[in-house]
Amino acid sequence: MAANYPTMKRSPLSELGRRTEPPPISWLIQLALSRPRLISLAAGFTDNESLPVEDVRGLLNGILRSRRTGQPALQYGSTQGDPVLRRLTARHIRRLDAGPASSRVYSADRLIITNGSQQLLYMVAEALCDTGDIVLVEDPTYFVYLGILQSRGLRARTVRLEKDGLDLARLEHLLVRLKRTGELRRVKLLYLVSYFQNPTAVTTRFEKKSGALEVLGKFERAAGHPIYLLEDAGYRELRFKGEDVKSSLAVKGRAERVIYTGTYSKPFATGTRVAFGLLPEPVFTAVLRIKGNHDFGTSNLLQQLLAQALATGRYDRHLVELRERYARKARIMSKALREQFPAEVEWLEPRGGMYFWARLPRRLESGPKSKLFREALANNVLYVPGELCYADDSTRVKPNREMRISFGNAVEKDIRTGVARLGAALHKLLDL
Amino acid sequence: MAANYPTMKRSPLSELGRRTEPPPISWLIQLALSRPRLISLAAGFTDNESLPVEDVRGLLNGILRSRRTGQPALQYGSTQGDPVLRRLTARHIRRLDAGPASSRVYSADRLIITNGSQQLLYMVAEALCDTGDIVLVEDPTYFVYLGILQSRGLRARTVRLEKDGLDLARLEHLLVRLKRTGELRRVKLLYLVSYFQNPTAVTTRFEKKSGALEVLGKFERAAGHPIYLLEDAGYRELRFKGEDVKSSLAVKGRAERVIYTGTYSKPFATGTRVAFGLLPEPVFTAVLRIKGNHDFGTSNLLQQLLAQALATGRYDRHLVELRERYARKARIMSKALREQFPAEVEWLEPRGGMYFWARLPRRLESGPKSKLFREALANNVLYVPGELCYADDSTRVKPNREMRISFGNAVEKDIRTGVARLGAALHKLLDL
Repeated sequence: MAANYPTMKRSPLSELGRRTEPPPISWLIQLALSRPRLISLAAGFTDNESLPVEDVRGLLNGILRSRRTGQPALQYGSTQGDPVLRRLTARHIRRLDAGPASSRVYSADRLIITNGSQQLLYMVAEALCDTGDIVLVEDPTYFVYLGILQSRGLRARTVRLEKDGLDLARLEHLLVRLKRTGELRRVKLLYLVSYFQNPTAVTTRFEKKSGALEVLGKFERAAGHPIYLLEDAGYRELRFKGEDVKSSLAVKGRAERVIYTGTYSKPFATGTRVAFGLLPEPVFTAVLRIKGNHDFGTSNLLQQLLAQALATGRYDRHLVELRERYARKARIMSKALREQFPAEVEWLEPRGGMYFWARLPRRLESGPKSKLFREALANNVLYVPGELCYADDSTRVKPNREMRISFGNAVEKDIRTGVARLGAALHKLLDL
Repeated sequence: MAANYPTMKRSPLSELGRRTEPPPISWLIQLALSRPRLISLAAGFTDNESLPVEDVRGLLNGILRSRRTGQPALQYGSTQGDPVLRRLTARHIRRLDAGPASSRVYSADRLIITNGSQQLLYMVAEALCDTGDIVLVEDPTYFVYLGILQSRGLRARTVRLEKDGLDLARLEHLLVRLKRTGELRRVKLLYLVSYFQNPTAVTTRFEKKSGALEVLGKFERAAGHPIYLLEDAGYRELRFKGEDVKSSLAVKGRAERVIYTGTYSKPFATGTRVAFGLLPEPVFTAVLRIKGNHDFGTSNLLQQLLAQALATGRYDRHLVELRERYARKARIMSKALREQFPAEVEWLEPRGGMYFWARLPRRLESGPKSKLFREALANNVLYVPGELCYADDSTRVKPNREMRISFGNAVEKDIRTGVARLGAALHKLLDL
């Protein structure tokens, strides 16, 4: 490519363009690609074997068999999303929450179909936050969300996570502090990954969702505007133990402050990337308009596919199989961890989702430049260093002795071998 | 939904959230939906009958027949897009431009797959423009693009459109003026819909693309940064008369300043919304990172589908049929216009795309509040008032006597009836 242009003194990029960093795990992905014999327990990919290839084929054949149903699937749709998929999705969430059929909270009118829940998270940030605004997050949290905040010049303030969700006393304490420093008006929302959290596998108790909404509500007058709870329920249906927990939409009288997002990527066909959000006004209208500018609507073909999966019951049947499969893989990983990891390493047994979160003894670090990470790499195994999941927050030291280890994508043999390799690395360093 | 919250004094929305307006044609869509007997010549939808239902079914069956090919299609992919689709797309554009196989300009490494070309347009605005920056646009231009600019607080400056593209003298004149007012450093790009433009059906001559790049280049030193040509080739392959024109990527030594976007929504399966951009650095890296935050990649299933359509030749075969079909519909509309419209109305015969752009005699207006629009509505026919396609630009009066009339979606009978109804409205008002 001929370079006829002189070098310019200024970058043509916008502030956002210059600011946006590469995703924190892009180097991890590169590592994995460059070493074919590597076992990655780092990837957030779903289980390949259980991807519903036959179901999707059958459903698409049904849609495309006739021109009557095939044509609309191959035509543009509306920005908000297919009415049938919205109705079935809204009903699905309402039933999970055991909400009354008459509830306006679960109305399809409040629902927007998006390209992955990631797009919903992005648009909500666009709709609510100006540069310099503050978003409250769990500590640790979903690192891709932190990328959105970084890119948009938003500040994360962290709230300690307990075994049953957010530490509400800390949440309140943080808000008091922000009020004192005059920063409360910059606080727009609290982001919760409420089911089998990525990365810790913690599920937030319903009482804590309710409590969080109450705490946020107390500070609204001082903030001068609503403060939202953004509930990311991405892993909700990947539950293989215990009972479902109601979402924050079910907290009485608070639905006006709840933005709920869920996805079909995790529980059904990952490669379709169809997801959704349920939003209160004025966020709903703002996000819908932004979606109009992003892409004026998600692929109709994919939406029809998901609507058919729900309508025919294939979605529910698939979920039963999928849960058994993830349960089995979690058991295999748990057994391997018990057998292979030093006794001083701690972890929580996940009841759903795709992750174990392991905490090392004090004298070991897990970061990208740590001895452990290099030793693991030498052993051809990859994990996500825990520190990537912690937001920058100068009010606490960033923890650096945790690992996210995923059983989502790896096959059973690789889970066993991968954990054994990690265990060998840990033993070696602890024995030094 | 219980309203337990008091009214707040401030909106929680961001500047962008508050600023973003509804799309200019949302009321047109509502009108169309509320009147089932209405014939809409306003919609930008593609031709239903020619949507490749059987092709898509066959291709998807091929992909989903085995788990070997089906699983990757239902798994997450990369943010940049499927390597095979990128390679085939880059080659496809290179061949259209008759570029040498060795050209780095058409490298798959520079290509990003997006959700509609709309997403590419949005991300380029994010990557390049800060609030208050200036984007040069054709006058008139694609109204959905104006929505992006409005939403992001960007200013459009308009350049007159001639029958073979941009008026280059006016472009230069505008840049001289912006230099004089000290605003040149706010100018980041020129947006061109270069083939069978929406709304006017004008195709930009290659020499004008080359000329535009030369003019922009002359002002870069004063601007202090690169000024890009964003070429939107969305309708390029919907050509039914004449020869293809090379894209601005083919202008020698200027590819570093060209951002090219194309789509598979228009020429193949609209409801898939798979599109792409070819971008120079540093825009490429910025947009790729932004895409990571938007959705970290377009649906793999749809990408595999398009890759197969290209690899098997079904895409090319479909294009041949599609062009015949649009040619036929354009002929029908042209004939109807000649028969039904008053002689004083002028229009350009399109050689591709989906639109006629008709200019009324001076004493008639076409706007949403005009007598003509109301009369048309009373006759149950809808067009897009031309003024919606003109950016706000205080340096000229906004034209208000044009109509965009589409033959894309309406069936042949409705094209005839719709034009007759419009013609009746025009005759009535001209005879008053």
